[in-house]
Amino acid sequence: MALINKKISFRPIITVIGFLLMMEAVFMAGGIPFAIYYGEDLWALIMSLFITFFTGFFCWLPHRRLNEDISRREGFLIVTLSWVVVSFFGMLPYLFALDISVTDAFFESISGFTTTGASILTRLESVPKGILFWRSMTQWMGGMGIIMLTLAILPMLGIAGFQLFAAEFPGPNKSKLHPKITVTAKRLWGVYLFFSFLCFAFLYMGDMNLFQAVCHSLTTISTGGFSTETANIAAFSPYSQYVITVFMIIGGTNFTIIYFLAKRMFKKVLDYHEFWIYLGIIAAATLIIALGLAYHSQTGTEECFRQSFFYATSMLTTTGFVTVDYMTWHVYLIMALFCLMLIGGMAGSTSGGIKVIRQCLLIKNSYLELKRLIHPNAVVPLTFSKKIIENNVLYKVMAFFILYTIVSFFFILILSFMGLDFQNSIGTVIATIGNIGPGLGNFDPAGNFSALPDFGKWLLAFLMLLGRLELFTVLVLFTPKFWKS
Amino acid sequence: MALINKKISFRPIITVIGFLLMMEAVFMAGGIPFAIYYGEDLWALIMSLFITFFTGFFCWLPHRRLNEDISRREGFLIVTLSWVVVSFFGMLPYLFALDISVTDAFFESISGFTTTGASILTRLESVPKGILFWRSMTQWMGGMGIIMLTLAILPMLGIAGFQLFAAEFPGPNKSKLHPKITVTAKRLWGVYLFFSFLCFAFLYMGDMNLFQAVCHSLTTISTGGFSTETANIAAFSPYSQYVITVFMIIGGTNFTIIYFLAKRMFKKVLDYHEFWIYLGIIAAATLIIALGLAYHSQTGTEECFRQSFFYATSMLTTTGFVTVDYMTWHVYLIMALFCLMLIGGMAGSTSGGIKVIRQCLLIKNSYLELKRLIHPNAVVPLTFSKKIIENNVLYKVMAFFILYTIVSFFFILILSFMGLDFQNSIGTVIATIGNIGPGLGNFDPAGNFSALPDFGKWLLAFLMLLGRLELFTVLVLFTPKFWKS
Repeated sequence: MALINKKISFRPIITVIGFLLMMEAVFMAGGIPFAIYYGEDLWALIMSLFITFFTGFFCWLPHRRLNEDISRREGFLIVTLSWVVVSFFGMLPYLFALDISVTDAFFESISGFTTTGASILTRLESVPKGILFWRSMTQWMGGMGIIMLTLAILPMLGIAGFQLFAAEFPGPNKSKLHPKITVTAKRLWGVYLFFSFLCFAFLYMGDMNLFQAVCHSLTTISTGGFSTETANIAAFSPYSQYVITVFMIIGGTNFTIIYFLAKRMFKKVLDYHEFWIYLGIIAAATLIIALGLAYHSQTGTEECFRQSFFYATSMLTTTGFVTVDYMTWHVYLIMALFCLMLIGGMAGSTSGGIKVIRQCLLIKNSYLELKRLIHPNAVVPLTFSKKIIENNVLYKVMAFFILYTIVSFFFILILSFMGLDFQNSIGTVIATIGNIGPGLGNFDPAGNFSALPDFGKWLLAFLMLLGRLELFTVLVLFTPKFWKS
Repeated sequence: MALINKKISFRPIITVIGFLLMMEAVFMAGGIPFAIYYGEDLWALIMSLFITFFTGFFCWLPHRRLNEDISRREGFLIVTLSWVVVSFFGMLPYLFALDISVTDAFFESISGFTTTGASILTRLESVPKGILFWRSMTQWMGGMGIIMLTLAILPMLGIAGFQLFAAEFPGPNKSKLHPKITVTAKRLWGVYLFFSFLCFAFLYMGDMNLFQAVCHSLTTISTGGFSTETANIAAFSPYSQYVITVFMIIGGTNFTIIYFLAKRMFKKVLDYHEFWIYLGIIAAATLIIALGLAYHSQTGTEECFRQSFFYATSMLTTTGFVTVDYMTWHVYLIMALFCLMLIGGMAGSTSGGIKVIRQCLLIKNSYLELKRLIHPNAVVPLTFSKKIIENNVLYKVMAFFILYTIVSFFFILILSFMGLDFQNSIGTVIATIGNIGPGLGNFDPAGNFSALPDFGKWLLAFLMLLGRLELFTVLVLFTPKFWKS
């Protein structure tokens, strides 16, 4: 038994978070050019930037040359605290620029950094552009964070990254891209940056102005779902809607696969079944919803297809962009969207939810269980993408699914105690734990949660964090054993 | 690899089912005295009785001395077909006596034999007493069936009962009551009979007449939930409601535990944690719901406690008896009932649902997973009732839970396609797969499904069967491998 008797040392934790805060301040600066261009008050952004930067700097400074080994427990603390502290400082621009409470500001900030897209802002047109840019940027950073944190920062800290990786990296996939992990991270980073730019370029060619194109590219590739318009994506042309749909699909794809595609390593992509199942689900859902829409409404064929393609993608990739109000749709179409929310995108993407590969493994294993029942002594191994899935991995996937279900039910019960009705409490929990944004009922389709009581907002903020960090990473901090030295 | 190359032989299957049909006919006769007493037409019952008996007789006759070994696959076929065929003949009295369709009659019959309690009969006062008796009897037989089938019939057929037992007996508990399995079965049978009689005696002492007391004792101990009154249990005095509540608790208890209690083997009961958790859930739910009712309504303390105790028990034990309309309650109280439905009673009882022990194992294991994350190399075994749960057993429990969730979602989606709203489709699926009866929404609280289209009724009938036979037993028949010799 490998007991860690070492006390938790907060020095490396503070150093890392300090570094992250300085980076955050740099990204905050990105809003300043827009604020200047639109002639807005710079005070809120600059103030936030300074506070964040200098807090970070003074955290980082004392132990910056520290070369201490980091224990697993410190690693878990770094992961969760990074998201919380960065979200905490991320709320400063909202607090300074808008007339909102700390609860609302924090909710908006963590909704951004977890790439959820649930919002408490009601009239986006009245929000300064510099602030809206920052709001979009939080999602982009959050998406990048998932890649950065698991593949670059933790190894940089001397942690054997892959150990923690199992809990942190979304999904059971560990297919190595490149032996040297920091090189891998930089490549994925490059992919992320490249597709963000590509998305911007395509959007800018359409009816979006520079500001809108920048903001939407940041929140599309990160499957975040914040928009600059109250009308959300309905404010833009069909062309822009198609572009966003395509880039949501990319955002929900494993970045390793995208890298392979970009490098024309098609054989590897072909063998990666999760990708094809992921595309298959989008295609099937698009077809079903399009037929349903065409049957029930008077809209034209192109619009039925577009809405259906858009929503199937937006929900499956847990982006949460909206156009028309889907709550006016027929109940089974809403239920279909709900199921997509539960599935989630691919493992290793920026999307949330349970993830396609997990669902595949669980369904396939359920079927194999039936075979095992007929021949109880036969060895019926689970395979996926032509590889045998070890029992150990399968077991972790099952445990994850079960914890996801238990935690969801627990929160659904609490929300119903707060007075939310059946559909709303279920929809809200799934929309936040799955990092989607809009739910089912009152708090949709714009994903607006401003009407919720403060306590509910804190609960949902916690739930977004849980979902983003794959539950275990956060919940482990709540066990007494974690804090025993 | 132990491949079974033997072709499936239908001779023993037909023989067993023939035997069961003859027994069914005997039980049908039980309604005749009531029909005579109430001066009703005997035709429907006698006709059904003869058809059932002689069909059974001619199935049983040819191979009654057969001493063939039965394979696992034949065992699975026997289990599922028994329930289906017995339900099929069980619908005859409804068909002959009432003006209803085959769909409705079969729905009512399988709802009885699976101890679900969902109904399509709308005005019970207009139904002949002989038929109502038969309706209650189907639930009693269904409850007995779960005990009989797993512990007596299968071993009698030469099957190594415990092998199939793992899939058939509700829950992972295999604590042996007595080494000789047929002796065990007879003892559990005795317990079942004794408590049915005790329930009858207590009910008869109250405001129920002989007929009502008989019928309600049959459906209480079997956690079935059919009543003889349209008003269900609201038609009776508080005394009767308390008696029914207590006997529902007994019905939801592992019959091994009841046997231990009756034999004063208190040490064994004390060590059996599932029992205390089961009672604890009832107590906690009663307290929460009672406080909620007292806070939101003007009813007296006794009534709040009684309704709360009654409903906590009725839902947890998956009986589905109702008094007041709980859909008028505050949303969180409805949600609390919904959670109880999902938990289910104890393994080895007549109740449905996922079962307390499974939920405990899953929740406890989720917590242990967090510990395992801190010390990845440490062995952290799952224990329950002071015993170590083998990985193999835990794995089966996880697989069951996951299949339960997947199947539920699949059916929820289909029901929503049929036009049921969000709450109704979820409530209906949980109420039928969990063998509860009343759901959430239009089809409650009397558990009446008469308004559903025919296709929906067949779906729900299948779902009740799935839930009653613990999913795997039925679904295995749908794998191609099952039918390959």
